[in-house]
Amino acid sequence: MAPLASLAVRFDVIRRFKLVVKMAQLAKEASILMGSLTSEVKNNALAAIAQALMANQDAIIVANEKDLARARQDKVSDVLLKRLRFDKGKIASAAAAIESLIKLDDPVGKTLDATELDKGLELYKVSCPIGVLGIVFESRPDALVQISTLALKSGNAVLLKGGTEAANTNKILAEIIAGASARAGLPDGWMALLETRADVKAMLELDDYIDLIIPRGSSAFVKYIMDNTSIPVLGHADGICHVYVDAGADVDMALKIAYDSKCQYAAVCNAMETLLVAEKIAGDFLPRIKALYDKAGVQIRGDQRCREIIDCVAASEQDWCTEYNELIISIKVLAGLDNAIEHINRFGSHHTDAIVTEDERAAKRFMNLVDSANVFWNCSTRFADGYRYGLGAEVGISTNKIHARGPVGLEGLVIYKWKLLGSGQVVADYSGDNGRSFTHKKIAGNNTLS
Amino acid sequence: MAPLASLAVRFDVIRRFKLVVKMAQLAKEASILMGSLTSEVKNNALAAIAQALMANQDAIIVANEKDLARARQDKVSDVLLKRLRFDKGKIASAAAAIESLIKLDDPVGKTLDATELDKGLELYKVSCPIGVLGIVFESRPDALVQISTLALKSGNAVLLKGGTEAANTNKILAEIIAGASARAGLPDGWMALLETRADVKAMLELDDYIDLIIPRGSSAFVKYIMDNTSIPVLGHADGICHVYVDAGADVDMALKIAYDSKCQYAAVCNAMETLLVAEKIAGDFLPRIKALYDKAGVQIRGDQRCREIIDCVAASEQDWCTEYNELIISIKVLAGLDNAIEHINRFGSHHTDAIVTEDERAAKRFMNLVDSANVFWNCSTRFADGYRYGLGAEVGISTNKIHARGPVGLEGLVIYKWKLLGSGQVVADYSGDNGRSFTHKKIAGNNTLS
Repeated sequence: MAPLASLAVRFDVIRRFKLVVKMAQLAKEASILMGSLTSEVKNNALAAIAQALMANQDAIIVANEKDLARARQDKVSDVLLKRLRFDKGKIASAAAAIESLIKLDDPVGKTLDATELDKGLELYKVSCPIGVLGIVFESRPDALVQISTLALKSGNAVLLKGGTEAANTNKILAEIIAGASARAGLPDGWMALLETRADVKAMLELDDYIDLIIPRGSSAFVKYIMDNTSIPVLGHADGICHVYVDAGADVDMALKIAYDSKCQYAAVCNAMETLLVAEKIAGDFLPRIKALYDKAGVQIRGDQRCREIIDCVAASEQDWCTEYNELIISIKVLAGLDNAIEHINRFGSHHTDAIVTEDERAAKRFMNLVDSANVFWNCSTRFADGYRYGLGAEVGISTNKIHARGPVGLEGLVIYKWKLLGSGQVVADYSGDNGRSFTHKKIAGNNTLS
Repeated sequence: MAPLASLAVRFDVIRRFKLVVKMAQLAKEASILMGSLTSEVKNNALAAIAQALMANQDAIIVANEKDLARARQDKVSDVLLKRLRFDKGKIASAAAAIESLIKLDDPVGKTLDATELDKGLELYKVSCPIGVLGIVFESRPDALVQISTLALKSGNAVLLKGGTEAANTNKILAEIIAGASARAGLPDGWMALLETRADVKAMLELDDYIDLIIPRGSSAFVKYIMDNTSIPVLGHADGICHVYVDAGADVDMALKIAYDSKCQYAAVCNAMETLLVAEKIAGDFLPRIKALYDKAGVQIRGDQRCREIIDCVAASEQDWCTEYNELIISIKVLAGLDNAIEHINRFGSHHTDAIVTEDERAAKRFMNLVDSANVFWNCSTRFADGYRYGLGAEVGISTNKIHARGPVGLEGLVIYKWKLLGSGQVVADYSGDNGRSFTHKKIAGNNTLS
């Protein structure tokens, strides 16, 4: 590269970095105001966004066509093209999802706890937004609409970075959402769209302004984010989910659950990757599940003991820690419950694991000792999902061990602050041998001044 | 250094690293069992620890004397010597604190939410331990007892690293606690003591085993930890706390609160560092607070407008972001409420900030727009404390925006898992146009099999 060109690139890097800092500062300022908006203002803004999306359908489709044309030029797969497409149907779905979001309870301003510390000294623990979210997501343009409206409902400001394939669609969607929400009274800069990978890298450094990073993408990508920022990350690792068919299982039920967990939709994180079978039941169960899997086109990779019962490919050690996301399954035959628990805790990704058994004590032991976000008894792993759980909206599925775990709804986007309402009290009065005592009486009511 | 000696050092580094990995692996294994201990087993273990501390007083004091002798040799300050001392009185206090901890509710196994998804398909959100905690704390040996017993009560395994000054005391305390708890049935390796800084560095890399790091120490230290690990950190930054005396304040009350917030105990994070005063009231308030501060030996650093009213040192820009932790205060005179909010959000550390005013609307605006863990109206900042809040036990004070904020009690050491109890349900039955619908009915009860 010629020196001058290289210099130009460097200037551009610096310019972009400054731009991202500016966006983050604006978002931080906006976040303070976002946190005190009434539910009415937020819901009106959401309605305005839904209307603006519908009113600007044609322009959105034109922008999306550009992205699609480029993707076709780049010869991307049909699956990806389908995800990238944002047509009338998808725009209408996005608008409908916003209407549902409007109907949900406001997660902000809830009194989570109230204690009288003393007469006239009352403590309230009140939910509030986290502040500024940094969200990096994959190609589907629907994600931009979904994430920005979830942030709005929960009173957070947000910096967004979508997939480059959807750049034109994301740009117009962000403009429409920012415009409609500004007209509805939301503070300038509450949302902003990052454009490049370098922008994301810059954002990861801005721990003074960004309070939480939510990456949505591959495990490798989530791991990269975690390793490259001191900002808290709400991420999910692979979904290496298991079904364990216990010696005490109803075999018909086990067949149904093992089939659904693998085949109902194999490309998602809550699909099963490894099937564990108690040796006592393996002779009966394995040939019958093989028949079902064969019919569905599922490739089976079994351990030695599995292969003594059914004909299949040999599983390697690597198979126990692989998320296939397709019609492949690894099967292991085990002595019993405790071996299954050990296998899952060792090789699993702490996402979703199920036991099939009629033995309540076995189920209890499994659900207590398996260290996963979702532990199921006699049902499919595919139920691990915010909508199925009735959370109303899903931010994502977290394998974090703090803040939020499993399917995360709007409550994952809020935290709380402590409001102490006094009448002149000082700590000196409560100190020493003759100091006043605290009453620490739980109180009802919402006198939080919020 | 001679090549051979240097090689020996390297071997030692590798040996220590392997040792820490081993400790972390053992702790992870133990954590699975810790999570399913009954409250009775945990409380019995706590009682055994309290008894063992009392029974081994003499040995503890001998070990502590060694640490004290070395500290005296190193000519450490009297304040530090006092913190380091672990005498009969402190041992008795530590044992008494454990007795109180036994009386607290078990934070594990609580049903936080219960929903019927369909007939015979019930979802329970149940609290559970986080897993393995890595805790790094300062010189006071009491911290080791407090932290390990809090971890035990909440069902977590824990790796601990105390101050080097207290090495002998920490070692014997850890041995006593590990011994007593093992005899009471706790799994081997549920707690372990790290010994060197290199051990801490090793621990920060072990994100497969450690679920949460809690650093207790200076802000610089907490920041170092955050910048050097991908493990979530529950930390607190400086305590740059403010009191804002509004134009609508009762001046007598404001004097009392401004005095207590600075002088009741200046060395702690919830003491005030900066006093903000509305210009309307400054002429009346400032000379009177100066008289009080002068008497208490508080050095005042004021901005220009403050110095036009009272005689004091000139404050520099640096003063607005300094945690003095001693009898120094910075004072700024402002036009009014919104300037105070802006100053606090810009220069504060989001810890604890108070407004003194008789104007409810001003108080409401202050508490909503100040982005701090604790926002107070008409009372001293010194109330921001787990015991004063009635939490029963305090893990620390967090300025995180996720998981736990402000004074953190036992509930900050737990997360939750989702338990779904079915009777053979699969997702295919709920899919497509003729699929079953979810009922999503909130249910009472604790049928969590836990």
